[in-house]
Parts: sequence; C-alpha cells; structure tokens
Amino acid sequence: MKWPGSARLQEVFVGNGILVLGAGRSSRFLLKQFAEFCGKTGRILTVCDASQQELDKHTACLSLEGKVLDASDSAALEQLIEGKEMVVSLLPPLMHPAIAALCLKHKAHFASASYVGDAMRALNFEAHSSGLVFLNELGLDPGIDHLSAMRAMDEIRESGGEITSFESYCGGLVSEAHCADNPWKYKFSWNPRSVVLAGQGGNSLFRQNHQLRSVPWHRLFAEAKTLSIPGLGEFDAYANRDSLSYTSLYRLDEVSTLLRGTLRRENYCKNWQVLVELGFTDAQSTLPVSVCSVNDLCCALTGKGSNQLLSGWLIENNWIRLEQTAWFDFLNLESKQALGFKPNKASEVLESVLLDKWKLMPGDCDEVVMYHRIGFVKDGRKQQLHSVLSVTGEDEMHTAMAKTVGLPLALGVELVLSGNCPETGVIIPVSKYWYNGILPLLEQMGIRFAEHTEFSD
Amino acid sequence: MKWPGSARLQEVFVGNGILVLGAGRSSRFLLKQFAEFCGKTGRILTVCDASQQELDKHTACLSLEGKVLDASDSAALEQLIEGKEMVVSLLPPLMHPAIAALCLKHKAHFASASYVGDAMRALNFEAHSSGLVFLNELGLDPGIDHLSAMRAMDEIRESGGEITSFESYCGGLVSEAHCADNPWKYKFSWNPRSVVLAGQGGNSLFRQNHQLRSVPWHRLFAEAKTLSIPGLGEFDAYANRDSLSYTSLYRLDEVSTLLRGTLRRENYCKNWQVLVELGFTDAQSTLPVSVCSVNDLCCALTGKGSNQLLSGWLIENNWIRLEQTAWFDFLNLESKQALGFKPNKASEVLESVLLDKWKLMPGDCDEVVMYHRIGFVKDGRKQQLHSVLSVTGEDEMHTAMAKTVGLPLALGVELVLSGNCPETGVIIPVSKYWYNGILPLLEQMGIRFAEHTEFSD
Repeated sequence: MKWPGSARLQEVFVGNGILVLGAGRSSRFLLKQFAEFCGKTGRILTVCDASQQELDKHTACLSLEGKVLDASDSAALEQLIEGKEMVVSLLPPLMHPAIAALCLKHKAHFASASYVGDAMRALNFEAHSSGLVFLNELGLDPGIDHLSAMRAMDEIRESGGEITSFESYCGGLVSEAHCADNPWKYKFSWNPRSVVLAGQGGNSLFRQNHQLRSVPWHRLFAEAKTLSIPGLGEFDAYANRDSLSYTSLYRLDEVSTLLRGTLRRENYCKNWQVLVELGFTDAQSTLPVSVCSVNDLCCALTGKGSNQLLSGWLIENNWIRLEQTAWFDFLNLESKQALGFKPNKASEVLESVLLDKWKLMPGDCDEVVMYHRIGFVKDGRKQQLHSVLSVTGEDEMHTAMAKTVGLPLALGVELVLSGNCPETGVIIPVSKYWYNGILPLLEQMGIRFAEHTEFSD
Repeated sequence: MKWPGSARLQEVFVGNGILVLGAGRSSRFLLKQFAEFCGKTGRILTVCDASQQELDKHTACLSLEGKVLDASDSAALEQLIEGKEMVVSLLPPLMHPAIAALCLKHKAHFASASYVGDAMRALNFEAHSSGLVFLNELGLDPGIDHLSAMRAMDEIRESGGEITSFESYCGGLVSEAHCADNPWKYKFSWNPRSVVLAGQGGNSLFRQNHQLRSVPWHRLFAEAKTLSIPGLGEFDAYANRDSLSYTSLYRLDEVSTLLRGTLRRENYCKNWQVLVELGFTDAQSTLPVSVCSVNDLCCALTGKGSNQLLSGWLIENNWIRLEQTAWFDFLNLESKQALGFKPNKASEVLESVLLDKWKLMPGDCDEVVMYHRIGFVKDGRKQQLHSVLSVTGEDEMHTAMAKTVGLPLALGVELVLSGNCPETGVIIPVSKYWYNGILPLLEQMGIRFAEHTEFSD
C-alpha cells in the first residue's frame, strides 16, 4: 500500500526532520541512532527537554539541536511541532494524546513506546485519513514483546501449529553482579514511581488453565509465582495489568492460558507484598500532617512504638521470617531523619527511600530479561517454544533498558520515514512489516532471543 | 440568643409544617414522633418517598400527607420544600447539600442524621445569616454518640477532671437470640452497601497510647481488636474513619488515645478480612463480562477450579482454620446460580449474596450497642468512665436502629421548632443545649446509658 494520493503525500512530507520530546533516562540509544540516521538522510534532529543539563549530555557528543522546553507550554510545543516530519515522545504517557493532536494539525507522524489508551485510539480515523502514522507501544514492553511474540506465533501458525497457551514475561532488573549487597536485588532502570505503584491501576486479569483470574492489587504480589527461565534461573513473576486485552490483538481466543507477567529476582515479591499490606505503597489516602520521617510513617502504619524496630514488629506479627529482616533493614525504614519534603501519600515516602537505596551507582549494569513460553500442538504433538532475551547494560548511563526501549522505537521511526509503511492511523506494531523490519536490525545490535522448542506431551 | 430580629423571624417562620424526605428503613419511629408532635402543635406533616408502597405503610396508621417523589426531580423537590418550616432528609448523604441549598432559598430549616461534608459546611455562613438551623449528625452514630459523650466529658471537666483518653464504639447488630444459625451473627439493620464497602473511603486514622495510626483499608479488619463491654461481653471492634477529626469538636487535643470504632460480634472481623483480601468487597475494578454467578467470581478471585469448594481452597491456603469454613459455607459462595443482574464490581456480587443471607426475617430483633470508655485524672487519681447503651428492636420493622436514628433526629427537630434554639447555621449537636434537650427524653423512651466509674491507677 502506498500513501493515499500524491497530493496528500506532498502535504504529509513538508516536515524537515525529527523532533524528540524528552532527553532523560531512556533517550541515550535512541538519540544516537537518530543522529546517525539524520546524518545519512540530511534530516535535522531537534531534541527538547525541561533541563538544559540533560540536553548538554547529548549535544556534547551528538549532532543535534537541543531546546529547553516546558512541555506544559502548549504554544511553545506547537511551535516546535510545526514543520516537523515526525514527533517522537518520551514524555509521560498522559501527555501523548495532546501531542498527537498537534501532530494531526501540523501533518506530522507521531511515535512513542507507551500503551495506546482510549484518547489515542480516538485519533485513529483522522490520522488514517490524513495518511499519518501514529506508532505506539514500540519500546521494550510493550514493544519488543509484540514483535518477538508475533513473529514466533506467526511462524508456528504458518507451519501448521495451533497455539494453545501464551505466557510472556519481562523485567527491567539489575545485573546480579551489581547488587550483591542488596537483598532486594533490584535497582531502578526506569520510572521509579511505576515500580512503587505497580498493580494499583485495578485488578490484574488473565486466564490460566482455562480459569479466568481477576487478582486484586493488594494481593497481586502474594500471588506471584516462581518462574524458571531456561539458561537464566529462577525469577519471581507477577501478573501485569489486563492480559486478556491481548486476546484479539494476538489472535488468542482459544488458548487455555493467557498471561503477561513482570519479572523480579527471587523473593522480591513476597517482601514487596509486606510493604503493600502495611500500606507503604498507598497513593490514595492523605497522610496526617505530623508524618515527617520514614519512622513516623512506619509508626502510623504498623503501630510500633518508636523504640522498637520495624523488623522486630514484622517478626512478632509473622509477616516475615527471621532471615528476611535484612530486606527491610536494608531500606532503613526506621529512619527518624526528616524528609526533605512534606509527603501527602505513603507512596511518596517509600519512593523517596527507594530512590536513594535502589539507585544505579557508577559502574552498575542493569539487565533486561524477556521470556515467552508458547504452548502449541503441531502434527498431533504438544510442544512448547521457549524464547529468551537477556540484555545487560554497559554502565549506569548506557543501560539495557535505554537500549531496548530506544532502539526499537528508533528503528520503527526509520521504517515510517522510509516512506514504504503499509499502515496508517494509530498503530500497535504486531504485523510482519514491523517485526521483519525491526527484529533483524536489533539482532545485529545484540538484542537477540535464544529459542528452543521441546515436546511436552 | 434569640432569632436575629423580628422581621427575619417573620421571614423564617412562614412555613406550614415539616417535610420528611424518605420513608424507608429508618423512618418508622421518626414519623410516629412527628405525627404526634404535629398533632399537638397543629403543623402539617408531609412525607415523600419514591415508593407508594413505603408511604402506604405509614399513612395506614399515622396522620400524614404521603407524596410519591423522585428525589432527582429537583423542580418537584423544590415545589415541596417551598412554604415548609423544616425539611428532614433521610435520603443518601450526597443529596443533602442540594436539598439544604433549596432550604436556604425558601427559608426552611434542615435536619439530617448524616455527617457534615465540605459542601454542607460551605452553607454555614448563609444559613447563619438567614437565621436558619441546618442540624446534622443527629441520629445514632453520629448523633447519640455526640450527645452522650459530650455530656459525660462536660461533667468530668466541670467536676475538675482532665480527660486523658477517649474511645467510643457503636454497632448496629442483630440480637444474639435471633442469629443462632448464622455464624456471622450479623444481619442488616441499616444500609447494606455501607457494610460491604466499610473502610474503603481511605485509611482509618486514630491515636492509641500517644501513637498516631493510619491503617490501610485492606488491613482494617485484620487490625480489629477484641473489646470487652461491661455487662454485654466480648465484641470485635475496628477503627471507624478519621477519629482525629473529632479532636477539636470534642476538645481532645491532649489525649493519648482517641479512637472511634465500629462493633461486630466476635470473630466477624477476621472472617470479613478474608473477603476483603480475596477481593469480594472491591468496588473499583470492573469485572470481566463473563462473571455471571457467585461461583464465577470466586473462581476469578481465588483461581480455584469449579469442582473444588471455596472453603477447601481457603483451608489449603491457610486463610482460615477448619472450624471457620462454616462462615463461608453459610454464604453459599460457590453458588453457580446465575445472578439476576450483570455485576460491574465484585462488591455488587457480595452485596447481592448478603442481602439474601443477612436479611432480618419476620420476628428478628436487631440490637444497637454503644460504648464510651473515657479515661481521666481527677483529684490526682486515674479513673475510667464506662458508659454503655444497649437497645433491642421490637421486630424486623420496629428496629432498634430505626428508633435510635429516628428519635434523636425527631427530638432535635422539635427543639429547633420550639423557637428557642440558641445556635444557627450548620450545626453538629455537641453543646449542652442539645444533649440536655434530647437525652432525658430519649431516656424516657428507653434509650438509656448505664454508666460506672472505676479507678485505674
């Protein structure tokens, strides 16, 4: 399929380059890829961020225009979008529909790694009619999971197999070598707030052995399972949002198990469950004004006197076994030091603790793990495909997370700008065009799944 | 204090009677009291309800005008309010600010048994300026608790005592003689939805032994304590909303313990906690469309196969001990019968089960229990006042709940209409005027606290 009509083609391609909104944590590999691409194709690369400091990190080593932008200033934002060919947003997902609407107005393509919500979906018809591509869910998860799972399942189906179960797991972790002194074996390689609030959007929905499940958020981590990943060992896995919403996207109406999960290192989940149950992750109730330290919050939530240690309380109340106290001691949850801010919610206090304790330190390497386990029947025999990805970061700046979020997005944008894209409108990249166009290039860059199939009957 | 000026007095008292909105569960004693009062004073009593059937129950035995009203029809509502002296609302609390605003417009007093929220509080200045009384929180709890606690504490303070701790508990229960075959020992004598959603408004706040507590709703029932009430035995008690908001109202800045709690029969709370943790009370997440029976919901929440019983699952998972299975079996939580409606939330399914299982049957008597435990120091000695109220209903219609909610409200309204009320504006009845005007009359009607003081040092 070509662009609809040459007049429109003309109209669409008035832009003079790529605008990237956000130059933070996830942008490093994306910008490097874009800088090369723009260098080759003569496009201009413009990058905006609220912080001049963040911009300087990139302009020092890459050829690009850096502009300081307050993204809530919609007039300034519109001025930047006007005349661009493609707008790539790394800003918070809630801002994307408004940015995409400006792209509609100024005939620019749009791309992000974020989930498609109702507001974005509502732009489909108009984007499609304008011959524009609004490419979404093209990072790691969602992103590489779509591409790799669909490639694997299409291959099974095309060879005559029938999919009977689908599980897909992903985690942004820290390399085991770089968290030896941290019992949680976790550090932040992406948005800390999302880690603290995990699960709170509503019940997690999935199907397991033909049974529909709806797990309340306050029991999500208690229901985590131990998962053995071929070649990598044992992980904790908890259900991630609404897996059932993938039924039609992945054409999985008939499967007995449909589960998307999030990975953590072993034992993380049962300890996190303690924080959930005690109320540390709560983002709804307003805290009393007198809560000024982590200890104040501990005392308010647990009722322990200030002369007892939280770990002691936890043991008395059978929350955890003795050997687990190290997990909570590590977080200094009994610290009486005044917080540098007035917290409104318990989750803000916990986030401030974790920002300090779970920070990637110089030299730390993160690790991204993805695992698909796909059951199918072929030639009358039950089989399982195991598809495993593990990417380790280079250092605390050049993370595996930035690489696996940024590179698929960059390669997807390049596909759109190649002018041969067969789809228009609001797109989730699950078709052959996307996985065949992106996965082989990612493999050349070291992002490669190890796959093997075994009989399971 | 008299009404502000005779012109205004004239303006205020143009009304020709009392309008009662709502003729349901709580109205029986209130209407009987009003019918007598209006008979004596020559006032007209008008009662509105959405249901002609509910109205007929009252018009058959009382002298009053019954009118069918859809309370969401604000024009019809306004027409009824116009020309009234006093409007008494038994409608849902969220409707009260709009009704009170119409009372402002038409110079009518307003009264309800509901908590004062921000929207009601905002009407204070205008009501006060108009010489109107908007009387709130005058039922059982809030209501009788305000009156009795303030009387007890004023007496202690006036005799030279200093209050050091304050606890107040209340429960709308079923008489033990009428729930022998029901392990929960609970039936509905008031709004079932409030029972199902108990605690979900946010963390419960209180102070205990100088320690501020903020208990997340999903752990509220796990933190319930056993409470021994003099003369009545052991009860479960869980913290009720924000006890700290009573600090200034009750003048309790200095106390070590400030706790308002809700009562249930023994063991109710640990079993209810199971329902909370499993997600049965959840009113936030939307259920998958395929949930059509209680068993479907059980399976989705617990993951048990349809051939296992929930009680078996609960035991396997150590949720409850063997002897507790009767509690859950009683609710028929594994019923596969199709619900008569499409549930959107898990809480709707649970409510429909409980409406059936926890219904007051003909001849059933409910019981209202209230208990204040007030610590104080007087003449250098530590003492405790125990103040206990127990009222048993006459039958399933003439409930203790209807009596203890309706009579204080009726008596408070009569005080307002006496024309000697010293307060105007939005009022919570905590002053001498209210408790001296109402409690002695309630005592004549059999609503009487048993009090005793003991030394505790």
